[in-house]
Amino acid sequence: MSEDLSSKNHDDRAIGVFDSGIGGITVLRELVKNFPNENFIYLGDTARLPYGSKSAETVRNYSVQNMKFLMSRNVKALIVACNTASTQVFEDHFEKCPVYNVIGPGAALAAAKTKNKKIAVLATRAAIKAGSYTQKILAHLPDAEVFTQACPLFVPLAEEGWHDDPITNLIAFRYLQNLKSADIDTVVLGCTHYPLIRTSIEKVFGPHVHLIDSGVAMAQQIGEDFNSGKIKPNQSGNVAITIALTDTSEHFEALSAQLLAPVSSVQITFETVSVI
Amino acid sequence: MSEDLSSKNHDDRAIGVFDSGIGGITVLRELVKNFPNENFIYLGDTARLPYGSKSAETVRNYSVQNMKFLMSRNVKALIVACNTASTQVFEDHFEKCPVYNVIGPGAALAAAKTKNKKIAVLATRAAIKAGSYTQKILAHLPDAEVFTQACPLFVPLAEEGWHDDPITNLIAFRYLQNLKSADIDTVVLGCTHYPLIRTSIEKVFGPHVHLIDSGVAMAQQIGEDFNSGKIKPNQSGNVAITIALTDTSEHFEALSAQLLAPVSSVQITFETVSVI
Repeated sequence: MSEDLSSKNHDDRAIGVFDSGIGGITVLRELVKNFPNENFIYLGDTARLPYGSKSAETVRNYSVQNMKFLMSRNVKALIVACNTASTQVFEDHFEKCPVYNVIGPGAALAAAKTKNKKIAVLATRAAIKAGSYTQKILAHLPDAEVFTQACPLFVPLAEEGWHDDPITNLIAFRYLQNLKSADIDTVVLGCTHYPLIRTSIEKVFGPHVHLIDSGVAMAQQIGEDFNSGKIKPNQSGNVAITIALTDTSEHFEALSAQLLAPVSSVQITFETVSVI
Repeated sequence: MSEDLSSKNHDDRAIGVFDSGIGGITVLRELVKNFPNENFIYLGDTARLPYGSKSAETVRNYSVQNMKFLMSRNVKALIVACNTASTQVFEDHFEKCPVYNVIGPGAALAAAKTKNKKIAVLATRAAIKAGSYTQKILAHLPDAEVFTQACPLFVPLAEEGWHDDPITNLIAFRYLQNLKSADIDTVVLGCTHYPLIRTSIEKVFGPHVHLIDSGVAMAQQIGEDFNSGKIKPNQSGNVAITIALTDTSEHFEALSAQLLAPVSSVQITFETVSVI
């Protein structure tokens, strides 16, 4: 007796999420907070991180390997929780599974929030070079002015744990001072690491500028797709969170557990995996 | 008519050098400066950089792949121009080719230079954890006091090009202030990136402290082995420098050409290669 899975109104498979490293945990955190009954498997490609300084072709190859790995774990949705990878994932389905990249929801939210249509995008060198945010924002708001700034030191500062630190404030000011004079009202945190040093970025722009967090934008998009039935909820009552890493890292395990603790009491299972 | 290669007093094959990225160019620069008649092939594993935050096992796997690649290019010596990789390369020959890692010569030079036997080692988190410098320095000077400090932001600062910059000075002071009070007279720059931000490190310690540069120590070791006949010089009169990268990077090509220009007018050939 076969049954048409798509006709069911529930789907107990996990949601798959990947990033090069710790940054995507800020997206996972928002998803876990908003969808506490879902199963998640997170892949951190820590053996090859970071992606933000690598070529488009290499980032594409790594992303496809990561998606294949998550498909082998039977996920119901694929979330690209890395902005650099998102610039090289063009499909909306991969082997019939819906794919979400962080740029679409982030660009849509920025376009919805701005009043004066002056938007800044902060990202890695690779993501800025790809130009995806500018294209997507202009698709929503053709007369917007989009300013971009690569901030290569933000990722290592976030990973070093120098959050809300005088040195991070100084570096934020160095990168962002020219944008300040451009009368921007909305800033896209175009790298999933950046919410970790949000306080330093806020100090430069002041309280009246909207900061767009990829995780918040993604959770909003996923919520809409649960409502429309595009993806179906887990109703098994069993919830698991698995974090799979391509390289072992005690530093990563401790930091991700610390970031997830405020939003979930589910025990995290850590695994070391190969995706090649 | 066969000829015994080892009885020749010349060897026109290239010297192979590898690092995860740009740091090893500071070693290549010293080698090119000291041995202008030699051929060099440099491998930068830019598709997987950096190594300093990765596990010992992963760094070992990557290093062996890199050495196999260089052997396929028929080199006469293998130089591990990355301190993190050097902590995981234990052999002194690989497929009969002599292997040089930067830790041995750096530790020997530090032990020779210190007067008060108080030595500091600055390196990546992975290299400090491996403990190789401390072991090798103590093998030379059993009663030395060796202090260690991981400096994770030095690599991205060097790659960002913020050399002799007020922010780099501040970060150097943050990492090194505790060492200053320990009356150290010798500091090992235990990462091949660190000579790029040498000025900031010097500003913290002052002019009377010896800074040990891996490239200088390595050139000294290679010079001794040319003299002893362990490796034989190129006498063909033809000199080539090849830089092979596992990921394309215009930023890397420009920066390495700029670092080598003061020591050599040989045209550099760039290639993109796979080592897997």
